[in-house]
Parts: sequence; structure tokens; C-alpha cells
Amino acid sequence: MEEHHDLSVNLHLVIEGEEEIGSGNLGSFLEQNRDALKCDVAVVSDTGMIARGVPTLSYGLRGVTALEVKVTGPKMDLHSGVFGGAVANPITALAQLLATLHDRQGRVAIAGFYDRVKPLEDWEREAWRKLPVDGDKLILEETGVPELFGEAGYNSVERIWARPTAEINGIGGGYQGQGTKTVIASHAMAKLTFRLVPEQEGDEILKLAKEHLQKHLPKGVTMEITTGHSGPWYLTDPHSALGEAAQRALRKAFNRDPALIREGGSIPIVSQFREILGVETLLMGLALPDCRAHSPNENFPLENFEGGIRLNKAILQELA
Amino acid sequence: MEEHHDLSVNLHLVIEGEEEIGSGNLGSFLEQNRDALKCDVAVVSDTGMIARGVPTLSYGLRGVTALEVKVTGPKMDLHSGVFGGAVANPITALAQLLATLHDRQGRVAIAGFYDRVKPLEDWEREAWRKLPVDGDKLILEETGVPELFGEAGYNSVERIWARPTAEINGIGGGYQGQGTKTVIASHAMAKLTFRLVPEQEGDEILKLAKEHLQKHLPKGVTMEITTGHSGPWYLTDPHSALGEAAQRALRKAFNRDPALIREGGSIPIVSQFREILGVETLLMGLALPDCRAHSPNENFPLENFEGGIRLNKAILQELA
Repeated sequence: MEEHHDLSVNLHLVIEGEEEIGSGNLGSFLEQNRDALKCDVAVVSDTGMIARGVPTLSYGLRGVTALEVKVTGPKMDLHSGVFGGAVANPITALAQLLATLHDRQGRVAIAGFYDRVKPLEDWEREAWRKLPVDGDKLILEETGVPELFGEAGYNSVERIWARPTAEINGIGGGYQGQGTKTVIASHAMAKLTFRLVPEQEGDEILKLAKEHLQKHLPKGVTMEITTGHSGPWYLTDPHSALGEAAQRALRKAFNRDPALIREGGSIPIVSQFREILGVETLLMGLALPDCRAHSPNENFPLENFEGGIRLNKAILQELA
Repeated sequence: MEEHHDLSVNLHLVIEGEEEIGSGNLGSFLEQNRDALKCDVAVVSDTGMIARGVPTLSYGLRGVTALEVKVTGPKMDLHSGVFGGAVANPITALAQLLATLHDRQGRVAIAGFYDRVKPLEDWEREAWRKLPVDGDKLILEETGVPELFGEAGYNSVERIWARPTAEINGIGGGYQGQGTKTVIASHAMAKLTFRLVPEQEGDEILKLAKEHLQKHLPKGVTMEITTGHSGPWYLTDPHSALGEAAQRALRKAFNRDPALIREGGSIPIVSQFREILGVETLLMGLALPDCRAHSPNENFPLENFEGGIRLNKAILQELA
């Protein structure tokens, strides 16, 4: 506006603070304000750059759905000497149950889990192999894991960007303090999330997961399952007219050809923009691979803050 | 002493407060005071009665040994969208590892675990079946478990009194609070104890357990094992001269034939009395099956407090 005294496009800013808990209220807000928010495209900056200085257009995201499982045995914690051997241990039962979620090659073992999964396109695998980044090396360095591990038949970026997962995000039961306490816990719980890819449906995956857990529940315990928030996957065409505009803006802002990728994370609102406002979303984010999202020392470089200013100027011009 | 102006025996009282953490200092105290504590028999009241009003002599105890296992993957908690699928999940790996500890019939699956286990004697199984108590019913009522579960081929009291166990006493990892947090935890841990029976050796069981865990550790994670305190099992002859004296005292105090049982708990000091002082221990306890040891609302009836006064008077006379 300083340069041209006006913007070349009309602009709505939508700000929400519930993304990390599933954006539970944004959908109804969009519906209530559908007319006021009428637009041609959405632009979101909640994704990342594949490497420092490499402009990146993310054209796909995984979805996510969640459940919590609680396994109960005795009505109270028991002395493991007085009762141990004659009653099922809820922690042991939970471990046995969770161990059935995957085979030893890293594949999810829930019946039907992969039925709707759209295979990776050849052009995508080809394009991702040519990206100016060594995904395996990056993951080893950033995470410090002793070795990579995942579904057989896929490399690391394919596993993260295009394959679904079943992750246990938390587990707890019995005595977790210092030293020893010889109890058999009354109950134990685990929190699970599933990352979803096209064309998986969150509700169907939850149903299949529940059936799996019910089928594999060990003897001697009962189980409660609570389902949590869900967000769908997203996939758009990076070669559409809007996608090409985004690519030009990224090139202009960073003076380099953009990388076209998918991401492993989930941003439920982009599906709501599509469903409620009827528009596609351009995902042009600026987080670096070592930004430590959701970890201690999360960070964002000033250099990318400045790049973001250039990028936002360019995308408004290109979209116009 | 009020009745007879003297005791019929010489008496040492040994009081310690570390039983629940493995009695780490009592052994050296006994060694340092071996001469002062010279005696013919030890009497301990840390066991239970099989039912209200039924005097009980416990002639066997299980031992216990402990270890803690910590499984580590990434150096910090990771975003499960950004990295999920390409790195092993330490909680999943721990669940898979712990699931290998038992077969689905409740038998411990550690190689060599049962090699030294002394089979139950026919007379014991026979005697225990005649006890005036329904073990299965009691355990169902006291614990509230949906069904009994344990090693195939044994009833509940046999499982508790004469068979070894591998129990997970605690497990923890990742996010355990309200709602969802989409992390892959850096690490997860579990606390295990093993109840030991004649002739198992605590150190050997720990060695076998470590080998088992190392052998079954899933890919993509590392493991640390820390061993905790150990206490040996105990078995004495209820029909020895001292055992018969104990039975007479129990009969006198409660006006009923005593039940002869083993117990599932562990009292490490009785083995130290045997090894260091060279004496057997008479286990004549007064806790009831619903005393809720190690649980909320632990309790002890006044009636048994009074019975204990009669019993202590009688045992001193009978031992004399």
C-alpha cells in the first residue's frame, strides 16, 4: 500500500487460536460469515521450507484423528505380592493391546486401515527424490534417533508426507516415581493419534481402530475408548492457475525455484475453507526443518521473517 | 510378666522401618550385632490370616526382584505430524517389548524363567484345597476384577503362593494430561518386579530378564536397564518342633485349628535371620484378606489386635 496506495486484491484476514486443539469453532464462524468472507483463494503460512533458502509450496497435508484407551482391572491398586499371578495386570494388558497396532516392519496392523489410501503418484516420488535435501540425513540430525524406522517400501519423506500412521502420544499407569512400588495398577491409559492421507476418512479409521482394540483386548480387563478431535487430510493441485501464481511469488521472494512438497502435519482449517467457502488454499510457510515445532527451543529465523514480508507482497501481486 | 513376674523365654525385639524399600540396612545391623541377637527362633507378624477368625501359620513367602527399563528414540519430544512415520515411537517400542514378557496363557515367556522353580508338593495342593476359604471368590470380591486370570494349570492360591510372576508396576511416557498432544515422546519407561519362588535366584532372574529385553528390543530405539532391590523367597517346615509350637499357640489364641499356607508377598528379613543369625522364622500374622495392603483404606480390625495379644502370650509359653 505504501508503494501503490492500494492493494491489488481485496483481502480478508482470518485469525484463530484453536488450531492445536482441532479448530473446533472456526467451522461455525466460517458458516456464519460465509458471505462476508467470500473469496477466490485462501493463503496460509503454517507450513515449512524444505531447507534454509528454498521456497516451498506445500500442496498436501495429512489429516489427524485421535482416541484414548483406558484399560481397567481391579477396582483399586493392589499389592503385587498378595494378588500377583491371579489377576490380569492392566499395564501388561495395555502393552499387549498396543503391541498389536503395528507389525514389526512398521506397517499399521488394523484391518482395513490402508484400504482407502491413494498410492503415491510416480511423478511425486520422482519429484521428491530430486529435491535439494537429504531427507534421511536431515531426520537423523534433527531428531537424534539411533536409526530411521518406518513402513517398509517407502523412504523417509514418503513415509511422512504420503503414508498414514498410528502413533501412541502418551501412556501412563501405576507407579512412575523414584524407586520401586510393588503395585498392580487399577488401570492404565494410552493416547493415540492417527495421521490420515487421501482418501482415508477420520470417522472410519476411528471405527476400524475401535474394532481392532476390542478384538485384541486381553483377558481379565475391561476397556473404555474415548474419541478426540479429527481433522481431514488436504491435497490440492500445485499446477493449477493459483498454484502457478504461488510458485511465481515464491520464486520472486527467494530468487530460486520452489520445491513442491506435501507435509506430514495437519491443518484442519484448510478443509473447512474448501468445504464452507469453496476455495483452495495455498500453503506457503516459512518454518525451517530445525524449527523444533512442538518441542523445547522452538524457533524461527529473522531471515525468514523478512522473506515472509517479500513473499506476502509477491503473492498479492501474482494473485491479482 | 504381670501373671508370672518373668518371661518364660529371653526376648529380643528388632524393629526396622525399611521393609517396603528392601531392608537395605538390616543385614549389616544383624551382622554387627550377631552375638547380642543370638537366639533360637524369630517370630514375625507381617503376614495374614486366611479368613476372619482362622489362625494362620505362613511357612513360605515369595521373593522379589526389580528392574526399570527406559526406551529412548529421539533426543526430544517430536511433532508427530512432522516426523511421524519415519522414526520409531519409543512408547510403541516399549509396548511391543513388554508384550513379549508373557504368553497369552499368563505364563512368563522369559527363557529359563521356570528352570529352577520347585514344583508344588502334592500334599500342599491337597491341603490348600481343604482350607476353609474360597480363594477364587475372595479374590473376585476383594479386587473387583471382571474375571480371574493367571498361569494355566493352577488355581488362584497356587498362582499367588507358589508360582513366580513378572509384573509391570508402572509405565509412563509422552503426554498424559487432558486432551490430545500430538507428540512422539523422546522416551518411555516401565518398572517391573518379579515375584520369586523356591529355588529361583534373584540375580539369575534379573540376568535372564535383561537378556530377554535385549533380545526383543524393537528397531529404532535404545534401552537402559536399571536393577532395583532384591529379596529372596522363604520356605520353612511347618511340622518342625518350632512349627508345631507355633501351631499350638495359634490354636490356643483363636480356639481353632490353624491353616498352614504360603503367601505371595515378600519379607526379605526372614532370609537374613536364617543366613546371619542361623534361625528359622515363624510367620504368624493377623492381617485379614480385606486389609487392602498397599491400597487406599488399608485397615486392621481391633478384634485381631486383641487376638494378637493372646497369640504373643501363647507363643512365648509354647516356645519355652
